[in-house]
Amino acid sequence: MLSPVITDTTRSPHSRLRPVAVNAVTLDDRVWSLFGRLNRFVILPYQYRQCEVTGRLENFRRAAAPSPQGEFQGLFFNDSDVYKWLEAASWTLASGENASVANMVDTAIGIVAAAQQPDGYLNTYFMFDRAGERWSNLTVYHELYCAGHLIQAAVAHKRATNRDDLLTIARRFADLICDTFGPEAAGKRPGTDGHPEIEMALVELYRLTGERRYLDQALYFIDARGHGLLGGAVYCQDETPFRQRHKLAGHAVRALYLCAGAADVYAETGETVLLEALERQWQHMTTRQMYISGGLGARHEGESFGDDYELPNDTAYAETCAAIASVMWNWRMLLLHGEARYADLMEHTLYNAVLPGLALDGQHYFYVNPLAADGTHRRQPWFNCACCPPNLARLLAQMPGYVYSVSDEGVWAHLYAQNDAQLTLTNGQTARLKQRTNYPWDGRIDLVVEGSGEFSLFLRIPGWCDGASLAINTQPFDGALTPGTYVEVRRQWQSGDRLRLTLPMPVRAVESHPRVTANTGRVALMRGPILYCVEAADNPGLNLDGLTLCDEPYDSSFFFNMLGAVIALHATAHTQPPAAPWGNELYRTTRLQATPETTQITAIPYFAWGNREAGPMQVWLRM
Amino acid sequence: MLSPVITDTTRSPHSRLRPVAVNAVTLDDRVWSLFGRLNRFVILPYQYRQCEVTGRLENFRRAAAPSPQGEFQGLFFNDSDVYKWLEAASWTLASGENASVANMVDTAIGIVAAAQQPDGYLNTYFMFDRAGERWSNLTVYHELYCAGHLIQAAVAHKRATNRDDLLTIARRFADLICDTFGPEAAGKRPGTDGHPEIEMALVELYRLTGERRYLDQALYFIDARGHGLLGGAVYCQDETPFRQRHKLAGHAVRALYLCAGAADVYAETGETVLLEALERQWQHMTTRQMYISGGLGARHEGESFGDDYELPNDTAYAETCAAIASVMWNWRMLLLHGEARYADLMEHTLYNAVLPGLALDGQHYFYVNPLAADGTHRRQPWFNCACCPPNLARLLAQMPGYVYSVSDEGVWAHLYAQNDAQLTLTNGQTARLKQRTNYPWDGRIDLVVEGSGEFSLFLRIPGWCDGASLAINTQPFDGALTPGTYVEVRRQWQSGDRLRLTLPMPVRAVESHPRVTANTGRVALMRGPILYCVEAADNPGLNLDGLTLCDEPYDSSFFFNMLGAVIALHATAHTQPPAAPWGNELYRTTRLQATPETTQITAIPYFAWGNREAGPMQVWLRM
Repeated sequence: MLSPVITDTTRSPHSRLRPVAVNAVTLDDRVWSLFGRLNRFVILPYQYRQCEVTGRLENFRRAAAPSPQGEFQGLFFNDSDVYKWLEAASWTLASGENASVANMVDTAIGIVAAAQQPDGYLNTYFMFDRAGERWSNLTVYHELYCAGHLIQAAVAHKRATNRDDLLTIARRFADLICDTFGPEAAGKRPGTDGHPEIEMALVELYRLTGERRYLDQALYFIDARGHGLLGGAVYCQDETPFRQRHKLAGHAVRALYLCAGAADVYAETGETVLLEALERQWQHMTTRQMYISGGLGARHEGESFGDDYELPNDTAYAETCAAIASVMWNWRMLLLHGEARYADLMEHTLYNAVLPGLALDGQHYFYVNPLAADGTHRRQPWFNCACCPPNLARLLAQMPGYVYSVSDEGVWAHLYAQNDAQLTLTNGQTARLKQRTNYPWDGRIDLVVEGSGEFSLFLRIPGWCDGASLAINTQPFDGALTPGTYVEVRRQWQSGDRLRLTLPMPVRAVESHPRVTANTGRVALMRGPILYCVEAADNPGLNLDGLTLCDEPYDSSFFFNMLGAVIALHATAHTQPPAAPWGNELYRTTRLQATPETTQITAIPYFAWGNREAGPMQVWLRM
Repeated sequence: MLSPVITDTTRSPHSRLRPVAVNAVTLDDRVWSLFGRLNRFVILPYQYRQCEVTGRLENFRRAAAPSPQGEFQGLFFNDSDVYKWLEAASWTLASGENASVANMVDTAIGIVAAAQQPDGYLNTYFMFDRAGERWSNLTVYHELYCAGHLIQAAVAHKRATNRDDLLTIARRFADLICDTFGPEAAGKRPGTDGHPEIEMALVELYRLTGERRYLDQALYFIDARGHGLLGGAVYCQDETPFRQRHKLAGHAVRALYLCAGAADVYAETGETVLLEALERQWQHMTTRQMYISGGLGARHEGESFGDDYELPNDTAYAETCAAIASVMWNWRMLLLHGEARYADLMEHTLYNAVLPGLALDGQHYFYVNPLAADGTHRRQPWFNCACCPPNLARLLAQMPGYVYSVSDEGVWAHLYAQNDAQLTLTNGQTARLKQRTNYPWDGRIDLVVEGSGEFSLFLRIPGWCDGASLAINTQPFDGALTPGTYVEVRRQWQSGDRLRLTLPMPVRAVESHPRVTANTGRVALMRGPILYCVEAADNPGLNLDGLTLCDEPYDSSFFFNMLGAVIALHATAHTQPPAAPWGNELYRTTRLQATPETTQITAIPYFAWGNREAGPMQVWLRM
């Protein structure tokens, strides 16, 4: 039995699609439902404890004293981790039955509330010895960034629980921010944050409350960039006005959060120039700057984008938060016009760039996600700069809301993952769907309609899928099933009507543009939406970097050691003995192998790497 | 019959070796003597004409007027090209018999002399509309750089001709510079040039004249760096004091010229801290920053060094001048202690990084030297910024002086190339040698001593050479012949004594350090000191980037289309059909080749590429 739909969102005027409530869909699939359960019962309690033991909650408690003593603990943006945790935990409350997390949420809200200052200001870094320095350095100190996370947590909490306590806190702070920052001509203080984030939050607050000033403020913060308020730094997204941009540059998470915020603003205002800037940047990103995983940000230096086609594998940065930010941006672009390319990239990034950041135990994380490793890069239980772990938690908590959307025409199926859904169409009609599938391990998806009514079902045909087929109650569908589009099936549905979508999933060898010199002569293996890698644990004693794939076809089989079961791939490869260890020399004479030996190799989903004993890993294999 | 030795240099007190005069050696080898002849009869007249038609000489003529009218033509450092040409041409006068170039030299000196201002100043860029701005921006305008080239030309002209006319001009300018620049405490103006060069020149002027102030001034210019006089820019070599440096950084030619100048200063002063800084930078360069060609400077941006191991092939910068600068630096390091590693790298760079910059016709040049090309990068007849062509000319003119040095012990054979030499030992004794060899195409070298006397012959055993053998008058030498060292043979020589050194030259497949991701899974072919490449002209219709080398051994044979004859290599390789053209996409599905086809491929010396029809070229082949 589905939980009742207790939250909803209104359609933005310039969006074709409307999101559905996070509890409108109950996942029971082979990947996300498992991580969702892990999130509720392991990750959220674990991260709450981390916020406690690292002093993140204590900063709020101590700031609540009339004259706070001592020093702020940790990094200046640590408040945001508490807010991100609160947002994540709140979303999970929408489906009820999570008493222990619900108690933690209430405790945390109480602690946060007590620290808020009389005028609404709330940032504990500026409540101890730096109490007099509020707003003194927006370039560095992330005050508006933290405020954004507070607002997002409050919106989630309100939507999930219909309670106002956290929302009241957030609105008071948002109002102070709107009163403070703006054009000089309006008697305000010009400024914008070194780290975009508040833009998305303010648009959501506008959607929830209907207060136009929040939307206007979001647009102000976007357009304040590129005029030197932040010293003109590309790192801080201040080099170029947003509307003039052609490519993402600087700090990857900042650039992507800003795009997500701008997409939110466009959905409400419909300003074409914003959409054009977004589309230019998306095109450039997907054709010049993106790892095959969907990961973004080639350079450790400045956590930033590199040059076009600069995509080294071993030294990739590809921060987990950047992948999450890409999902957020693509989701917003998808809602605008219902174009499958955004859903394709969202799904791809979820499996191949977001999930790798999370250990299968929920308690170890990658901040940095290389595509080739020598065994020294290991998952960590926490980070001093802990942006990624709670970002993963809040994304997992929202996953059910990403599966479908609705529009005036009907229901859009973006993601395939076994679930039951009860969706409210824009005309108030209810559509109940059951999705039955072993996707992503199998390409057969059955969609069963419960109840009756006339509406369209839009099914995504993934861009990677040639030869998709569709049957409705065993009758073949006679329209085109073009990869990278949605197919629309409109009819007067009768309860029990069944659509069977079949997406062939041969293993694909994927090559990259010749200017990506890191991948010259190499291919990566994919099957369906999943990117694969070889890891030492399955290929003991082999020199992974020296493997040369021989023949197609490849085998695939279930592999039962991870996440219940995942599909592993098997292939034949020529082997090379491990290279002799390198000293300091840059070049040395070698010998070609006259008659290479062949062996069977096993590849696992890239998202599952780094969960066993330390050892090398490689995505790109020689061909 | 050898020309008489008309010039000589004194040994620097901290150098073990002393250079020999440029006309002490007459080359008759298979590479350098051909280019030397090309230099005298084609390159120098051609470049003189270029200096004329591009206004470089005209700037001097017009600047000589009492009130120069009009505008300076070309780039602000264009005077230096005239000076470099004068230096190149002067060295060739040492061997006489070059009347037409001798006339051009006299004309050019007359033009330069007329433009010198009464106080000795001489830079035509600051003699027209910017006449009042002399010395106003050392960071950008290369005034001391141009002065350095004037001084080097004057030293060459004096050594080669024993005439004083150009030297007088240069000394007047050098004296003005010494009077002008120095520490504030000495009542002078602090400053150093954005582009190092004058340091080497001043040390040479000191060696020629014995005037200590020139040496002191060179050291002042080196130590003035790293204190913000040039804005602290790494590009201008102002980020770190030279003595503290651990690696080359910024603009490659500037960094290398500075090292060459510092090595010159060390040779005179023996300050250990300078030598240590030089050795650290040399170690770092050769193990982290150097193309297999010996080329230096990975990035177009700022013509600069990249990160460690950042050595992309298709986008390599590897400016011809940087290779020449590396030869200059290695030569100076070699003279200090007679260590073979410097001679090894000098020879390697000469063949594989300097020569590729020059077309076989002497009238087309590469400024940028990629190690992989798609056919669009073509040699040019000249450049707006024409630093490389006259730099090649002055290096070719000095080549005979690089073959041998002398020390208190005897004669050092650095380079192998057929020649006759008449060398003056430090005790005044004369040693006459004949070197007979087809090197670099063959590893057998006969050295015949003419005349008698007791001294040592030091023979370089190249670092790449395993299994060298040596016979003296057919008797096997019984000492060790360790690669990368000099073997000393001391005896009372009798006229006609013959040493036969045999250096085996199998084809070598060379791999690079795994952190050079551009070369993963690839090898480069070398034979003796020569680096090879495959070029479309010899391998029509093949996808060069897709070639996979099969088996050793390789064949080699003479190839008669270039430079008389060069050795080409032949190998068997698997082929792949040319990749389907790439559009804008970053990734695409591909198919592995089930049964690769094999073919014979031909590789030519990398230095000879780009001399025929346009087409792709590749140094690093898949293995």
